[in-house]
Amino acid sequence: MSFTTTAEIKQFQGTLYKLAHESTTTKTKMEVNVFVPPTKSSKKTPVLVYLSGLTCTPNNASEKSFLAYFATKYGFAIVFPDTSPRGANIAGEDDSWDFGTGAGFYVDATTEPWKNNYNMYSYVHKELLTELAKHFTDLDFKTISITGHSMGGMGALTGFLKNPGTYKSVSAFAPISNPSTCPWGEKNFGNYLGEDKEQWNQYDPTYLIKEYKHENQPTILIHQGTDDTFYKQKQLQPENFVEASTGYKGGVKLNLVDGYDHSYFFISTFVEEHAKHHAKYLGLIE
Amino acid sequence: MSFTTTAEIKQFQGTLYKLAHESTTTKTKMEVNVFVPPTKSSKKTPVLVYLSGLTCTPNNASEKSFLAYFATKYGFAIVFPDTSPRGANIAGEDDSWDFGTGAGFYVDATTEPWKNNYNMYSYVHKELLTELAKHFTDLDFKTISITGHSMGGMGALTGFLKNPGTYKSVSAFAPISNPSTCPWGEKNFGNYLGEDKEQWNQYDPTYLIKEYKHENQPTILIHQGTDDTFYKQKQLQPENFVEASTGYKGGVKLNLVDGYDHSYFFISTFVEEHAKHHAKYLGLIE
Repeated sequence: MSFTTTAEIKQFQGTLYKLAHESTTTKTKMEVNVFVPPTKSSKKTPVLVYLSGLTCTPNNASEKSFLAYFATKYGFAIVFPDTSPRGANIAGEDDSWDFGTGAGFYVDATTEPWKNNYNMYSYVHKELLTELAKHFTDLDFKTISITGHSMGGMGALTGFLKNPGTYKSVSAFAPISNPSTCPWGEKNFGNYLGEDKEQWNQYDPTYLIKEYKHENQPTILIHQGTDDTFYKQKQLQPENFVEASTGYKGGVKLNLVDGYDHSYFFISTFVEEHAKHHAKYLGLIE
Repeated sequence: MSFTTTAEIKQFQGTLYKLAHESTTTKTKMEVNVFVPPTKSSKKTPVLVYLSGLTCTPNNASEKSFLAYFATKYGFAIVFPDTSPRGANIAGEDDSWDFGTGAGFYVDATTEPWKNNYNMYSYVHKELLTELAKHFTDLDFKTISITGHSMGGMGALTGFLKNPGTYKSVSAFAPISNPSTCPWGEKNFGNYLGEDKEQWNQYDPTYLIKEYKHENQPTILIHQGTDDTFYKQKQLQPENFVEASTGYKGGVKLNLVDGYDHSYFFISTFVEEHAKHHAKYLGLIE
């Protein structure tokens, strides 16, 4: 379905587009922000997808991550999807900040009453990117990488590992790395996917990296603050992901950064390193 | 009065302190954010004051301006004051988004019922900086510059011009440049200062620059977006300030930037240039 533009904002010599469309996957109206940098060459512009964490809309990272500054510097576009359907009008979807609205968990739900709308996995990796490629013909949706924060870090890792060869590179800020074994994951997977743990594994980066066989094995970059409350509560567990990655040739570079929390103050500090990481795999720098 | 620390957040290798204190000037509790960059040398760290616009708290610019990224790069601290007293409990102070709470206009009120609390001019330029110098003994409050956005851009220009030699340099993002002749200024000056236009002049950058005689005449840097709604409505009028500055030897460099609006997307785009401008006058770069 085609997009309507709700705002067009100039920033860093590029443009932030705020768009809305009717999604056939979530059967709701969905919003998405896309930052397009100024054109540097006649080549199409590569794309970085940024998946946000719990409670976020496309606006939080657009306003607070500072990623667009480096997108202009290196020459890639950014897609900021929403984190769940909104307005599906399912009883209970607004009851909890860490489940339902704002917490789609980037899965395709298989249970009632969620399976009709809560299909953020297919929405992000299939419908949205396909539709955006038709809308933004100057962007190169074949040269694309993915990153994200917290729940979105999980979504980025999962999306990379489940779609071998689609994303040139992946990185994550404080990702929920082993959702099958943490309270957030148990709550969301239990509700969206039911009791079958084999289904949970299909969205668990720590499970998926053991199974990954594709030749595209870029280094996976992760930053995790040591003063992050959710890290201390073992919601994130990046060490489990690293342990499971022994067979992954590209390697996982986990940076435990002293004293940083879970907020956009943490993200904006390390976004430069992630932007540079992706710029390399997107062919923008050596 | 001494400060209590309500949060201490690591960002860009430095620390953002969220502080609160009881102000003797506003006779209310006041909040302020201070970003301290990592120490680069044994010298005390210079300071840049950032005055925010209508409706803002100290948090908006702390989260959205990205000034701290460049503060770490160049080695200056940032002080983000609040924009008005809060909780003065004056009838009518919360009725309007552009007057009262969140809109102190950086003046010392002379009218009832405002003059007991609404003294943001003296609060910022006298009490706050004096008290912060006692609290942060590693910061150099004698090597200090000032900037701001919209109402805060006016506050920065006014503070610089009314305190000759105090601030090494000044800059502004979309400042209210001639408040005596625009709707926002008429509303706020009328309420806080009464009908005497001579009092209004004492807070009007376009009046004050004509009177300025001090030898400290750094170039004044201003950015203004051409798609800024308030610029189009003639609330800002930077051209009036430029016209009035013919006797100012440092000159005013007004950059009209095509297509930018009044938001933090505009500020964050040009904050790099302003940071560099101040770093030069603060003796941090050539």
